[in-house]
Amino acid sequence: MIDPLERWRARGLPDKPDYAGLLTFGGMPYTQDPAELAGVDVAIVGAPFDDLVSDRPGARFGPRAIRAASCPPGAHLEAGVDAFAELRVIDFGDAPVVPADPAASHLAIEETVGAVVTAGAIPVVLGGDHSIAEPDVRACAARHGPVGLVHFDTHADTGTEVFAIERSHGTPMYRLVEAGQVDPGRYVQIGLRGYWPGPKEFAWQEERGITSFFVHDVRDLGIREVVARSAALVADGPVFVSVDVDVLDPAFAPGTGTPEPGGLTSVELLWAVRAVAEALDVVGADVVEVVPTAVGSADVTALAAERVVREVLTGIALRRRTAM
Amino acid sequence: MIDPLERWRARGLPDKPDYAGLLTFGGMPYTQDPAELAGVDVAIVGAPFDDLVSDRPGARFGPRAIRAASCPPGAHLEAGVDAFAELRVIDFGDAPVVPADPAASHLAIEETVGAVVTAGAIPVVLGGDHSIAEPDVRACAARHGPVGLVHFDTHADTGTEVFAIERSHGTPMYRLVEAGQVDPGRYVQIGLRGYWPGPKEFAWQEERGITSFFVHDVRDLGIREVVARSAALVADGPVFVSVDVDVLDPAFAPGTGTPEPGGLTSVELLWAVRAVAEALDVVGADVVEVVPTAVGSADVTALAAERVVREVLTGIALRRRTAM
Amino acid sequence: MIDPLERWRARGLPDKPDYAGLLTFGGMPYTQDPAELAGVDVAIVGAPFDDLVSDRPGARFGPRAIRAASCPPGAHLEAGVDAFAELRVIDFGDAPVVPADPAASHLAIEETVGAVVTAGAIPVVLGGDHSIAEPDVRACAARHGPVGLVHFDTHADTGTEVFAIERSHGTPMYRLVEAGQVDPGRYVQIGLRGYWPGPKEFAWQEERGITSFFVHDVRDLGIREVVARSAALVADGPVFVSVDVDVLDPAFAPGTGTPEPGGLTSVELLWAVRAVAEALDVVGADVVEVVPTAVGSADVTALAAERVVREVLTGIALRRRTAM
Amino acid sequence: MIDPLERWRARGLPDKPDYAGLLTFGGMPYTQDPAELAGVDVAIVGAPFDDLVSDRPGARFGPRAIRAASCPPGAHLEAGVDAFAELRVIDFGDAPVVPADPAASHLAIEETVGAVVTAGAIPVVLGGDHSIAEPDVRACAARHGPVGLVHFDTHADTGTEVFAIERSHGTPMYRLVEAGQVDPGRYVQIGLRGYWPGPKEFAWQEERGITSFFVHDVRDLGIREVVARSAALVADGPVFVSVDVDVLDPAFAPGTGTPEPGGLTSVELLWAVRAVAEALDVVGADVVEVVPTAVGSADVTALAAERVVREVLTGIALRRRTAM
Amino acid sequence: MIDPLERWRARGLPDKPDYAGLLTFGGMPYTQDPAELAGVDVAIVGAPFDDLVSDRPGARFGPRAIRAASCPPGAHLEAGVDAFAELRVIDFGDAPVVPADPAASHLAIEETVGAVVTAGAIPVVLGGDHSIAEPDVRACAARHGPVGLVHFDTHADTGTEVFAIERSHGTPMYRLVEAGQVDPGRYVQIGLRGYWPGPKEFAWQEERGITSFFVHDVRDLGIREVVARSAALVADGPVFVSVDVDVLDPAFAPGTGTPEPGGLTSVELLWAVRAVAEALDVVGADVVEVVPTAVGSADVTALAAERVVREVLTGIALRRRTAM
Amino acid sequence: MIDPLERWRARGLPDKPDYAGLLTFGGMPYTQDPAELAGVDVAIVGAPFDDLVSDRPGARFGPRAIRAASCPPGAHLEAGVDAFAELRVIDFGDAPVVPADPAASHLAIEETVGAVVTAGAIPVVLGGDHSIAEPDVRACAARHGPVGLVHFDTHADTGTEVFAIERSHGTPMYRLVEAGQVDPGRYVQIGLRGYWPGPKEFAWQEERGITSFFVHDVRDLGIREVVARSAALVADGPVFVSVDVDVLDPAFAPGTGTPEPGGLTSVELLWAVRAVAEALDVVGADVVEVVPTAVGSADVTALAAERVVREVLTGIALRRRTAM
Repeated sequence: MIDPLERWRARGLPDKPDYAGLLTFGGMPYTQDPAELAGVDVAIVGAPFDDLVSDRPGARFGPRAIRAASCPPGAHLEAGVDAFAELRVIDFGDAPVVPADPAASHLAIEETVGAVVTAGAIPVVLGGDHSIAEPDVRACAARHGPVGLVHFDTHADTGTEVFAIERSHGTPMYRLVEAGQVDPGRYVQIGLRGYWPGPKEFAWQEERGITSFFVHDVRDLGIREVVARSAALVADGPVFVSVDVDVLDPAFAPGTGTPEPGGLTSVELLWAVRAVAEALDVVGADVVEVVPTAVGSADVTALAAERVVREVLTGIALRRRTAM
Repeated sequence: MIDPLERWRARGLPDKPDYAGLLTFGGMPYTQDPAELAGVDVAIVGAPFDDLVSDRPGARFGPRAIRAASCPPGAHLEAGVDAFAELRVIDFGDAPVVPADPAASHLAIEETVGAVVTAGAIPVVLGGDHSIAEPDVRACAARHGPVGLVHFDTHADTGTEVFAIERSHGTPMYRLVEAGQVDPGRYVQIGLRGYWPGPKEFAWQEERGITSFFVHDVRDLGIREVVARSAALVADGPVFVSVDVDVLDPAFAPGTGTPEPGGLTSVELLWAVRAVAEALDVVGADVVEVVPTAVGSADVTALAAERVVREVLTGIALRRRTAM
Repeated sequence: MIDPLERWRARGLPDKPDYAGLLTFGGMPYTQDPAELAGVDVAIVGAPFDDLVSDRPGARFGPRAIRAASCPPGAHLEAGVDAFAELRVIDFGDAPVVPADPAASHLAIEETVGAVVTAGAIPVVLGGDHSIAEPDVRACAARHGPVGLVHFDTHADTGTEVFAIERSHGTPMYRLVEAGQVDPGRYVQIGLRGYWPGPKEFAWQEERGITSFFVHDVRDLGIREVVARSAALVADGPVFVSVDVDVLDPAFAPGTGTPEPGGLTSVELLWAVRAVAEALDVVGADVVEVVPTAVGSADVTALAAERVVREVLTGIALRRRTAM
Repeated sequence: MIDPLERWRARGLPDKPDYAGLLTFGGMPYTQDPAELAGVDVAIVGAPFDDLVSDRPGARFGPRAIRAASCPPGAHLEAGVDAFAELRVIDFGDAPVVPADPAASHLAIEETVGAVVTAGAIPVVLGGDHSIAEPDVRACAARHGPVGLVHFDTHADTGTEVFAIERSHGTPMYRLVEAGQVDPGRYVQIGLRGYWPGPKEFAWQEERGITSFFVHDVRDLGIREVVARSAALVADGPVFVSVDVDVLDPAFAPGTGTPEPGGLTSVELLWAVRAVAEALDVVGADVVEVVPTAVGSADVTALAAERVVREVLTGIALRRRTAM
Repeated sequence: MIDPLERWRARGLPDKPDYAGLLTFGGMPYTQDPAELAGVDVAIVGAPFDDLVSDRPGARFGPRAIRAASCPPGAHLEAGVDAFAELRVIDFGDAPVVPADPAASHLAIEETVGAVVTAGAIPVVLGGDHSIAEPDVRACAARHGPVGLVHFDTHADTGTEVFAIERSHGTPMYRLVEAGQVDPGRYVQIGLRGYWPGPKEFAWQEERGITSFFVHDVRDLGIREVVARSAALVADGPVFVSVDVDVLDPAFAPGTGTPEPGGLTSVELLWAVRAVAEALDVVGADVVEVVPTAVGSADVTALAAERVVREVLTGIALRRRTAM
Repeated sequence: MIDPLERWRARGLPDKPDYAGLLTFGGMPYTQDPAELAGVDVAIVGAPFDDLVSDRPGARFGPRAIRAASCPPGAHLEAGVDAFAELRVIDFGDAPVVPADPAASHLAIEETVGAVVTAGAIPVVLGGDHSIAEPDVRACAARHGPVGLVHFDTHADTGTEVFAIERSHGTPMYRLVEAGQVDPGRYVQIGLRGYWPGPKEFAWQEERGITSFFVHDVRDLGIREVVARSAALVADGPVFVSVDVDVLDPAFAPGTGTPEPGGLTSVELLWAVRAVAEALDVVGADVVEVVPTAVGSADVTALAAERVVREVLTGIALRRRTAM
């Protein structure tokens, strides 16, 4: 594995500037060779795919933007742990998606995530539209069995179809539950608001035993209570964490396909993701629906998404430390 | 009335994509024929006018941007009611404003809103600069008599003049009170902050018995208490709701003519508008000062404004349901 | 048909402001009722579809942006004719495309364009990605038989596939020729440059007798000579004109999915399109690959596309005038 | 007069960085004291006013943006003369315009420009919408008598009214001719294109003896021939030069209220303005309709406008040098 | 001293429009003449310098953007005092920084701030990257002796070096403490979060007795308690207030070099700065790291920074009033 | 060397989508191992450095933006050659520059370019500000002796200093000539315009025998004649090609630090660069001063720069083909 940072290190500098060097997540080593996954704790995978959206496309540029928003490794100032020091993290590159071919792209994502899972590493997938949660979770469930799901989102994504399309960015969670890859009794949604889905979908959710915390629940109970209840519900067993950046208010994440005012703050979301990742046995995660809209070189949505990934890593590191 | 959605429905799809089809509010039917107002509950009216601003113009593009930010109808996830199912809502188009002619434009707005009011429907006006509140309210008061006013704004807009201009976006509320169209004892302002207006205007407000809740009151009392006190003050009788998007912090509404840091969050504003519309007898509303600044196709300010209108509709629907 | 302009006219104003009133092409009357196509010369059709791109999406927002870039009718200052006065032009709305469903969307486009053609009007389609040329031309050929094609583009769009996808924005012209809907002997490409397609596609083009004028031909021969030769080649018989805005240099059309430096100027393109439309028997046209990237309210790419449509209309009007 | 550059000079640096120091045109000394106009050759005046537009506003921010686009003084690389070394140039600040008060604002502009003219200096006015040409030229004609006019623009601006408004950004030239302040026999328009004005306006122009060079004339004759013919027509006597940046193609000047594709290049315009200013007796000039749309800190439209002013200054310097 | 507002006042208008007139902070009088500092309470100084950043540059445009975000003077609606009426405030222009010369630029800043301090006025410096805190504070300490420091920031800026550079935007606080210009026992940091600095820097901070309040402390204790504790710690004696706008969440301040999600809200920061300035003896302040990213003319980051300066002024005015 | 494209190829696709996969120039293989330079014809090197600018910074983001603007390999449609098929091209990554340390950064660039040169490959450097031409050329001259220089630029960059800084983005060519690394008799500048440099620099240039073609020469002679004369002057011997994107008009390259209206078109520049590279013995090249200003994901300046590099490669391939 070629280490893109060696030149800076050779000069006595521990890090590279964010804007220089090979574009990988957090400046981590890059490989696409499954053999190099041995011993890796977490592998970042890009899923540059947005062919299944029903509104604004552009999330295919998300993985690149999230990587470009990386800051150097370091200890999390609240958690007191440097995930990159505790965990072996690599950037496993992008899945070989095919433009305008949803089936081939989903297969490519599932195989790439699957390679990570097979190697015993935790995949963290950078989306991409939310339809990728289907191959992401399927690959995890193939190894771990039905997983619990902590799902941060404005939208429940439990439609049977969107505009008559069954595999859509609005249907992955329905499909995963029905296919037995997500255990509905261990599936919690956080942040729902707005005007979708409707009675049919909520009736199905209730029937399956899925738990929803709306934004008004966060407002009324506080994020800490919502996370505590969520963790208690999901409890033991493998868990997937899926974060749609539109769970944030558009002030914090304007660059997304279907933004909905009235959402979470980044203070709330970042803490919640870390708390979940520390409390539960995370076997995979994704952060989706980042539509880059940078002016100049800054992109606050991609930045928020990058930090969500960092909180996932930090939570995992905290849990491992505790476990020891 | 031509239904622009019939083609999608003919294909078995209940909605059209947001980005396709005729550009109307929420995809609602469009007409400019007063005869078709019969039986309508709420009519959306555009007021693409910004000739009376004292700072950054551009709100003339606001109505179009707000319509473009619409999402499809559906039940409000907290309120549990789909306003479009409960109310008959149409898009009555734009008032025939005349560029660079404030008097003719105000007259056009007043006549258009007046046609809605005369037909027994509730007008919801998309601004435009805040000067349009004058014709908006005048048209309502012509039918309902002096109205109560719930006014969300950074600025009191009760100047006698701005730069010696008497009909300005900074003076509508003074003029409406002095003309007897707003009952000052039933007039509440929510969200004031910053550096304007000054002692003269506040002295007049006190003299007239107008109530002001500043942002620091919202901070100290909470938005619920502020709304409760406001509703108690305004109480029974016809009410107009006027929302200047600059009441939001610029993080939530950067696209506006005179943004002022330190404002409300969208969580606060959206709840408050719905609560007001549910608690009081709303006979008209406007949402103003949206200056589109979209990069690509997203415009978070227009989006927030669109959702404010939705909350007005939802509150009205809730009130009617309760009334039955 | 409701005339959205009657209010302004009732005030003695012949036009509405560009930013106000119903959003239709050039402020023309809007209908989606095929019965109202009787007597119409040209019908504008939107095709808000971009699911078949291989690079940057966003052209689904193109039709709306092109309409928003309209200026009022008036006589073309060089040509001396007001197309809107000479021709009866309507806006026939958007085809009822379905997100993430290319087959259904193409069918919807073909049916909508077909309704226009059937009524004896000339369709001018606002894209959308270039894959829509396939249903556009197919609908025209269904009535007129194999058509000639004048195709302004950076890319030949004659691939058999792009990333193994056969119906793509890079393949419509191959498919139309092979299906017998475009007569390759009457097919001229203008503006090719860059690095695609390759030997295989050019070999096929040569075999079929397609004529290509590269940007370097425009540079060396001048646009007048290129158009003269093109018109001579295409000659009599029905002709479709397909304009991909990326034929313009990115300076003139930055908002497109696969921009390529070194392109035509707007002076060249606008003249050429008008000259073609005046010289030949145009039975249909499209302008595609507009990806709106407006900052504030201006969008130079949509503006250029709107004016390309105007030149089509002007050319048709000139031809009819000459014919009388 | 305080010299804002003295600190840099005190450090041995001849210039200040563009981004630092007091914001004046070209870093020139600033004063608003008419007494300090003595001995001044050219005074820059800002007219931050856009209340008379019929489409997109924002030109009120033009003067500030044009100043921010300044580069340091230096010899023009083609002309070989440093206008700032040959001429005494000052920044006379902005006219005290009043928001939403066109009459007061025009009066303020006329008085400010008048102060410059009275002092014997040449005013160069930074707009602002094109309606300011009326007070600009009126102030010049008050001293010099009816002036010749070289008018670079997409639009003739010779309407009797726009949307029934007589003093509009579309009418200044009509009003100036009718008021006797512009000599129609010495009035040349360069760059007309698009769809406005119509037969009525052109009939009046012909009647008055105004000469129009369209963009297609520039294309066919070349900019040199057009300027030569223009100079011959305008000939001796005082001349005002009025440049609407929308004469440039939107590729070169996207930030303007009514952009029109198919325009001049900056190479053409910059040369033409300098040639006119060298050939004729310029007594005043303005550059108008700059609507800043900077992303980050660059604004190509303001930049082009700034360089147009530089060419005016360079032409004047060349003429004076020749005269000696 | 030339008063740039006299023209408006001569017309009977108390203020100028924000977008017109000389660009100074709050429209205050401008001078660079130290002699005119006599009697001045507060002098605004620009430090357009960003040569010592480790990530995104652009803060050199900050001072100009902050001035452009000014609104007119007026009483603070919560505090009830108009700082501009109580204090004599001037804009002392920009320090004569030299591009690409950090040493010369820092010296220029120190001398300029020093001139203000020497004259007995309080300097408020507009950055510029955070390295300017070093000359800012040094100039204050030269007169007042070691100062207390209230430092709002995401990052502690107490590195010994950043990428081996000792004078960096990440090191000023270390250098000031070590040089004896900041009293570490009276130095409080508010708002730290993210992933920098690390153990070495925090160990040094602890050793020196510096107090840190992290964002999680603000979340858990509330901003009021944090400010109360901070004020108690800093207590009597001269104090410098240094505000890095990245202490705000990127939603509120996207335009900065190293944004970090999860930050303060503007409601929190504005109150806190005013409270600090009222409670303590402020002898100088700076607001730094504003990288303008305006689209059109609005720039929410510069706007927030401008209001931070207003809160500093308001706090000082409140304190003086109380003192009387 | 890991081949990031193998996954796509394994699926039967020859290329990857532009937006997916490892971010390298043209999707070429990436390495930073000098041992892998054996057999390489051209190595792309990034120089993300902008600490020596005198105006707008941001070019440190240039290399990443240029890579992101890459399109897949393919035959140049005019030249008929696929450079990537004829030449072995790799992406050698970024030089390990150090923020805020010009000396260390220049050394890092020189060493990285030197490694390429030593291995017998041609370096093509992506800037970065134009100061990097100094280490770029120095590394080439170290092997090849004094080189000829074809320099496309608005500015001559032959200052002895800029703001008293000797190593600046305005001085590299002076320094290289004086140090004997550029042969002034074989040094040609193309595209000069605007207001810098002045008499002193031109006197020195004349003394040294440097040849300048201004933009007005291109206008008057045509780009073909200018290139022909340039090639004749530079003639045989090793040549470096240095392209500052600001040689293009800001319409074509708005994202640059010191844009100057009135520049070359992309049609002119792209042809000229290829012609030079075909005619002369290019031993190195750089493309500099790209300041990314993408809105969404498109960046026309980076796109133009990427295609300039392609023309360099195409010219080299043409020359080699001819040589065989």
